[in-house]
Amino acid sequence: MNNRLNRNSEIPLYQQIEQIIKEKIVKGEWPAGTKIPSQRKLADIFRVNRSTVTAAIDELTASGLLEGKRGGGTKVTNHTWKSLSAVRPLDWTSYVRSGIHRPNSTTIQEINRQEFNEGMIRLGTGELSPELLPYRQMKEVLAGAEAEKLSLGYEEPKGNRYVREAVAEHLKRKGVNTSPDSILIVSGALQALQLIAIGLLKRKSAVLTERPSYLYSLHVFQSMEMRLFGIPVDESGLDPAFIPACKKQYGADLLYTIPSFHNPTGRQMSEDRRKELIRISKAYSLPIIEDDAYGDLWLDGPPPPPLKAFDQDGSILYVGTLSKTVSPGLRIGWVAGPEPVIERLADIKMQTDYGSSSLSQWAAAKWLAGGLYEQHLATIRKKLKIRRDAALRSLKAHCQAIATWEKPSGGFYIWVTFHKPLPLNTLFERALKKNVLINPGTLYDKEAKQSIRLSYSYASISDLEKGIRTVAELARELM
Amino acid sequence: MNNRLNRNSEIPLYQQIEQIIKEKIVKGEWPAGTKIPSQRKLADIFRVNRSTVTAAIDELTASGLLEGKRGGGTKVTNHTWKSLSAVRPLDWTSYVRSGIHRPNSTTIQEINRQEFNEGMIRLGTGELSPELLPYRQMKEVLAGAEAEKLSLGYEEPKGNRYVREAVAEHLKRKGVNTSPDSILIVSGALQALQLIAIGLLKRKSAVLTERPSYLYSLHVFQSMEMRLFGIPVDESGLDPAFIPACKKQYGADLLYTIPSFHNPTGRQMSEDRRKELIRISKAYSLPIIEDDAYGDLWLDGPPPPPLKAFDQDGSILYVGTLSKTVSPGLRIGWVAGPEPVIERLADIKMQTDYGSSSLSQWAAAKWLAGGLYEQHLATIRKKLKIRRDAALRSLKAHCQAIATWEKPSGGFYIWVTFHKPLPLNTLFERALKKNVLINPGTLYDKEAKQSIRLSYSYASISDLEKGIRTVAELARELM
Repeated sequence: MNNRLNRNSEIPLYQQIEQIIKEKIVKGEWPAGTKIPSQRKLADIFRVNRSTVTAAIDELTASGLLEGKRGGGTKVTNHTWKSLSAVRPLDWTSYVRSGIHRPNSTTIQEINRQEFNEGMIRLGTGELSPELLPYRQMKEVLAGAEAEKLSLGYEEPKGNRYVREAVAEHLKRKGVNTSPDSILIVSGALQALQLIAIGLLKRKSAVLTERPSYLYSLHVFQSMEMRLFGIPVDESGLDPAFIPACKKQYGADLLYTIPSFHNPTGRQMSEDRRKELIRISKAYSLPIIEDDAYGDLWLDGPPPPPLKAFDQDGSILYVGTLSKTVSPGLRIGWVAGPEPVIERLADIKMQTDYGSSSLSQWAAAKWLAGGLYEQHLATIRKKLKIRRDAALRSLKAHCQAIATWEKPSGGFYIWVTFHKPLPLNTLFERALKKNVLINPGTLYDKEAKQSIRLSYSYASISDLEKGIRTVAELARELM
Repeated sequence: MNNRLNRNSEIPLYQQIEQIIKEKIVKGEWPAGTKIPSQRKLADIFRVNRSTVTAAIDELTASGLLEGKRGGGTKVTNHTWKSLSAVRPLDWTSYVRSGIHRPNSTTIQEINRQEFNEGMIRLGTGELSPELLPYRQMKEVLAGAEAEKLSLGYEEPKGNRYVREAVAEHLKRKGVNTSPDSILIVSGALQALQLIAIGLLKRKSAVLTERPSYLYSLHVFQSMEMRLFGIPVDESGLDPAFIPACKKQYGADLLYTIPSFHNPTGRQMSEDRRKELIRISKAYSLPIIEDDAYGDLWLDGPPPPPLKAFDQDGSILYVGTLSKTVSPGLRIGWVAGPEPVIERLADIKMQTDYGSSSLSQWAAAKWLAGGLYEQHLATIRKKLKIRRDAALRSLKAHCQAIATWEKPSGGFYIWVTFHKPLPLNTLFERALKKNVLINPGTLYDKEAKQSIRLSYSYASISDLEKGIRTVAELARELM
């Protein structure tokens, strides 16, 4: 909206703003009932004094287009349209509230929005920092398109053949033998979970997972009325000894696990534990979704082979992605599993988005097949290790007296638990005011009221230090 | 599987095939209960005589890995695993059958599969032919990445800012004034419908649409337990006079329409009818989804402005896409509507796939902003017109005595209705045997048992002639 203001115009700025807002209302972009941005936010957007915004809002309120809300805020009135026509305006609000899918938690919505504010120190963001993203190599890949067989049409339901072959080769290097026919290309690991939720499970199904788990921060299963049950985690990972009881008590239908560099705890499941998990889940006919998003991001040494490498009878759906290693924006991931399951998921995928971007699939094939992926991994492992060690140093300097944590041997995350209870929401808000964005532990386990997930992958090393120091100071005040 | 056969080996081919199939079973790619491909199909895959396949299957059956199914076919046995372990194998079949989302209709699944068979004349395919896809221009766009601000990270929830600005400009040229804040970038128009289904509607909601309609061929609303009601169409498009009764009888919650170059009828809604539709749906508080996938593909003259251009109070969600004009593989579309609705859909999108491919979004921005899109449209309009006229000539030559149709003034489709009833499934199967793939009318209206949707966008002109002649001959036999 800002770029429509003309600062050299004879028309006062407040009147220009009034006009811009009026247009948004008249065009239906802000329909009746819309809560408009706060005056502070509008002042930011238009880069004017708050008094200028206040003058515009006052005019619009006087003309009956806006009204103050109880409890603060300003919304677009309903009676606007009554005066213009006899027809009641469409009440989108009821539509927005009544969809089947749950909205993201307000904390996550706030995080999603704040992440795009410049100057924010993002201590919770689970992505590679822009400085770690391979822009140069991607440009080279794209420039090389001349000689390549680019695909602009729809792809096969399971995805482009070349990228599936490249994924099969990639998995072979990790000890997983699977054919391209047993692989589905998806738009990131999250979509794999979405397809599994709507394609393989009944409503009310019970899904087991680590506690805490990334899965709790999503609504992918919960929106389909499925129930999540958390299994305790020890230093070797999820403890499969709890499975029999869960199976008996909840009739568990599926187990979701991140065995390597778990999100959010950073823990690694040992090889013995992996074999034990497979043995027990087989005995109880419990299929497993293995999320291996972080497996290639080891820092001190490779993790044990994926669960899928020990899978003898196709009871594991293996999920991988390029989002954490090459580019989240590519939106390319994969699922490997029994063919009838993969075909079912492919059919559902065709029904929801007709397949993933062929441009992204083509680029992914180039990355995986040409050795570029492995080269790039070697570079970012080094850089992530430096970041991890810096974060650990900052933690030691500022948090030793107030919190505990473990050194992760790969991935992006350190799970920091404060010694004493503290109001996490207040910590989140106060940190935000100081331009530090954190991910409260309650996103991953509603009982984890003393923990935060710290990510060393995104913020710069100096920001990591600054951000950790700020959070430590705020936490001390609140404890 | 074929490329694993060694035709120079001392090991007989049937034993090699036996080994390959055994591996697929042992690795769990074909778990217990899987129906394996027919012997005819396996012979095709391995490029061997059918007797060679039979020998391999016989061996595997004798060893207890496979068994004949009642009613034909061969499946992987259950007792395989019983002999190897005391543990019952995981029964994926029940998972595959029990998901919430319905499978595609078997006809559509068959079409999806057959489309990738070489030599098939695709008379039903609603896509641009590879010869109409802009490979050269796309390569130039990609090669130009060096100078551009490529984005490899996650994008904002509503999508990349540059592409939303480019879409807003594009819409302005069509008479639709909307700001980038009111636009959501999606992975094609189908995803827009998916997000609307799970984000804005309750279970059991009633959705009105044209009859026949493309919407009937999807399960996007039906899988969420919503009900579809068809409204009759005349030469000016959907007849809004039926809306009051539908609203009263079914409590309609939403209306979906394709006003320009309708799929599958090719019809165009007149300007008066558009205004009338808006007037009536406003009076009955019925929001509209306008699908404008084909609006830019006019052949004889531009269609009336989109419904959205007449929308005064944000009761229309406008859906557009690059799939039908530039590249389906890009998977880029957009929804324009009231901001609170767009924000709700953006939140759901973040929860299902974390946004569309940033590579595709970047390429789409380059296409829309640089004039490339308009240039390309001018070219394909000319070529589509030649194809449409050729298809009409072939219809006249072969079908005049047995069917009726209208000349579409844009888009991809001709709706051909035979004079007499005929078994459409048999027509579909016999055409398939002659390597001609058609889309039966029943996909779009279960009562349209005498119609097929003919597309002139995909097959070459000589294939269009050959395919139409073949279908005419088969139809004559069956009528």
